[in-house]
Amino acid sequence: MGSFTPKSFAPLDPQSFSDESKAVVDFIAEYYRNIEKYPVRSKVQPGYLSEKLPDTAPFYPESLEDILKDVSESILPGLTHWQSPNFFAYFQANASTAGFIGEMLCSGFNVVGFNWISSPAATELESIVMDWMGKMLKLPSSFLFSGTGGGVLQGSTTEAVICTLAAARDKALETLGGSDNIKKLVVYTSDQTHFTVQKSAKLIGITKSNFRVITTSFSTKFALSPENLRAAIEEDIKAGLVPLYLCGTVGTTACGAVDPIKELGKIAREYKMWFHVDAAYAGSACICPEFRPYLDGVELADSISLNSQKWFLTNMDCCCMWLKQPKFLIDSLSCTSEYLRNSASESNSVIDYTDWQIAVGRRFKALKLWIVIRKHGLTNLIDHIRSDVDMAKRFEELVAEDHNFEIVVPRKFALVCFRMKPEIESDGSKLNRKLLDAVNSSGRAFMTHGVVGGTFYIRAAIGATMTEEHHVDDLWKLIKEKAQEHQDS
Amino acid sequence: MGSFTPKSFAPLDPQSFSDESKAVVDFIAEYYRNIEKYPVRSKVQPGYLSEKLPDTAPFYPESLEDILKDVSESILPGLTHWQSPNFFAYFQANASTAGFIGEMLCSGFNVVGFNWISSPAATELESIVMDWMGKMLKLPSSFLFSGTGGGVLQGSTTEAVICTLAAARDKALETLGGSDNIKKLVVYTSDQTHFTVQKSAKLIGITKSNFRVITTSFSTKFALSPENLRAAIEEDIKAGLVPLYLCGTVGTTACGAVDPIKELGKIAREYKMWFHVDAAYAGSACICPEFRPYLDGVELADSISLNSQKWFLTNMDCCCMWLKQPKFLIDSLSCTSEYLRNSASESNSVIDYTDWQIAVGRRFKALKLWIVIRKHGLTNLIDHIRSDVDMAKRFEELVAEDHNFEIVVPRKFALVCFRMKPEIESDGSKLNRKLLDAVNSSGRAFMTHGVVGGTFYIRAAIGATMTEEHHVDDLWKLIKEKAQEHQDS
Repeated sequence: MGSFTPKSFAPLDPQSFSDESKAVVDFIAEYYRNIEKYPVRSKVQPGYLSEKLPDTAPFYPESLEDILKDVSESILPGLTHWQSPNFFAYFQANASTAGFIGEMLCSGFNVVGFNWISSPAATELESIVMDWMGKMLKLPSSFLFSGTGGGVLQGSTTEAVICTLAAARDKALETLGGSDNIKKLVVYTSDQTHFTVQKSAKLIGITKSNFRVITTSFSTKFALSPENLRAAIEEDIKAGLVPLYLCGTVGTTACGAVDPIKELGKIAREYKMWFHVDAAYAGSACICPEFRPYLDGVELADSISLNSQKWFLTNMDCCCMWLKQPKFLIDSLSCTSEYLRNSASESNSVIDYTDWQIAVGRRFKALKLWIVIRKHGLTNLIDHIRSDVDMAKRFEELVAEDHNFEIVVPRKFALVCFRMKPEIESDGSKLNRKLLDAVNSSGRAFMTHGVVGGTFYIRAAIGATMTEEHHVDDLWKLIKEKAQEHQDS
Repeated sequence: MGSFTPKSFAPLDPQSFSDESKAVVDFIAEYYRNIEKYPVRSKVQPGYLSEKLPDTAPFYPESLEDILKDVSESILPGLTHWQSPNFFAYFQANASTAGFIGEMLCSGFNVVGFNWISSPAATELESIVMDWMGKMLKLPSSFLFSGTGGGVLQGSTTEAVICTLAAARDKALETLGGSDNIKKLVVYTSDQTHFTVQKSAKLIGITKSNFRVITTSFSTKFALSPENLRAAIEEDIKAGLVPLYLCGTVGTTACGAVDPIKELGKIAREYKMWFHVDAAYAGSACICPEFRPYLDGVELADSISLNSQKWFLTNMDCCCMWLKQPKFLIDSLSCTSEYLRNSASESNSVIDYTDWQIAVGRRFKALKLWIVIRKHGLTNLIDHIRSDVDMAKRFEELVAEDHNFEIVVPRKFALVCFRMKPEIESDGSKLNRKLLDAVNSSGRAFMTHGVVGGTFYIRAAIGATMTEEHHVDDLWKLIKEKAQEHQDS
């Protein structure tokens, strides 16, 4: 080891780029081959890594071999293995070869596509692939560039919600005249809506007192009730407030519930609210004809988003959003700056996606969505969804057939919400927490939990890319084994 | 071609993952080898890609060969080649083998590190590497986890600014009592501050009338004048307003100016404002002792951010931010949700980075920063910065020696701001726009422009990863050639 002269320092030399990248491809392939050997949920204790790594950066360069050795010995034990076929927690985050390849090209080209001229292909491919995706979902042409709307890739649902909330806010304040009126604007959600809407509303200045959380219940399978929504709106209007934004969900995080999009859409139109459909999880499933009805009424929405990073094989991060009137987003988010001025933008003949999002710079994420779609084709993508749903169906049946267990919320997609039946209802939470902890501590599977209507339950989110039928069967065996151990103890 | 049964559909099969990923590595390595053959700034016309690609997604899968053929034939012509050694536009976006490898591991593991338990290594490596980086920059321990603060990776400066602005806002509103007081809060910047601060302020509800843009001039080399800042603050206080947030810049976008951080910090402390230091571009250079003085006074700041995706070889996207009191960020951004609850988080012994940022999910970006630092070591990273600065110095000298040209703002880092001298001052803008257009249209280099104090100039941002001395010499030859053509015409 010694000092290197600048001349020999070539951080992007094509030959060593190729050699070293291939070594890392081998490393990752080997990781996938062995992934079932690791405990799914990491077993490390807080602070484990600071005991393994130095507390200052090295002065001299280190070899790739040494770095990969540390990845194996220090990083892998601290991973919770989202790509394990035994990962059933949260919602899956589908990696795939196609998504990975797309990420490689994105990172390899490493263009910063803030505006059209900074890399025309990045903008144009994104517009094209958003139309492809929109057509696969049978979105009305009012959401497509080939119609009167358009789509954009965001990094997350939060960003999609913040951008649309800001657009709705600024549009409303323009009408009402004066920013003081922000205290009149009200956002409507259900108690099943993802918390990110509340986070977003707070961020753009909607206070908690103007954020409505409509209670749902078992009676509507935790869907937002249009009647209750209308009642809340009417009450607010009587109090001098102004309905601003409604978020409906297709596939809630807790239990996969679906809000009645058409009914909500009608109410949104009636009260002139911005209506956003959050289909983060289940939107991907709507490429299948049998699930598309859940999106019926989307023609009444102003915007819709789905996370293709969850169930659509595109690796982190990728959130598709379509808008009927991108103009309002641009009005709210556009800031001109001399250094970005160029004749293409000034001709108004191109899209500058930086005006459709929060950050200025943006990665060329469209590549991976494009490659995922092409490499699998609609037919295999539909099979991919159906195969996960079939496995979930099978798991649900196994649970339902066992008299010690019960389904808590009926399954719609590939999320199964179940629990062990308690002898006394008040023991239900403790019993199932213990069972869940026993399963997760085994390292053989990882699930998370939910609470709806006061009932604690276990969530089995089926759909990790490598999950096959036998993994689901093993999960059920593991659950029964841990339940038995509990009963024996 | 035909329909595939679900059984044969394995989107993450390790063997084909390995084979196909290596083919793409070869493709990218070949791209780097040939990168100088492409026009740096794309020559396509708006709409070029929709003529090459179908307007709906394929039903059947397509081969990787076909996809890569289309990347070559349809995508590459539409790229503006940020990795070309002849790219001198905007600021560089440094790709490197180390950064690419980090991105591969991030994408391969594809963990969603919102909280500690969802992948402890993601959180812990980020904390460790942020301390490494902070120490390399000689940040005071009040910004480090080993001290009393802490660091986090954001996706962009905009996100860093939004998060700190929201934290400052919510802290101030807590003190003032009531969200109505937002109309009293004032944000201070200079006319050289990146427009993203204005975008961010608008997003979190600070109206334009409460956003101060202090004019700078040639006399301060476009640095924010403490006197003018103080005058603006005093005027606002007299008007009953409350100073909220001050952004100082180390290396502005237009001309690489540096605000007097210490003087601004003193004023910020005096008026109890949140002081953020935006070192997006030049922060990376401050690992060199000769540039570190530009950060003097950072101990008076509340937060500082730099984009390692620009000049620190980490590929898109990676924005380092350190805070003295992460608590305020967490207070503003944290939202609890049942599905994320876990015993590690509840023990308060771990960091849940989702509460430090806008989005819920997050990529394992710390891997690439860690690998970049280890693979090069501090010594080579310093050489990397110095080599770019030396090339810029050389280019500046070439310009300054030519009586037809002049330096518009003295160079501090590796950005050279120059122009061709007009015979009549009023022709300066037209003359240099024409020259810049001639250079960019040649396809042999790409630069962008700036305007300060009413003067239009050309920006040569030197520092693309593969740029070597002869590229800078060629750039100068090209500029002189185009200037000569103009004079001859």
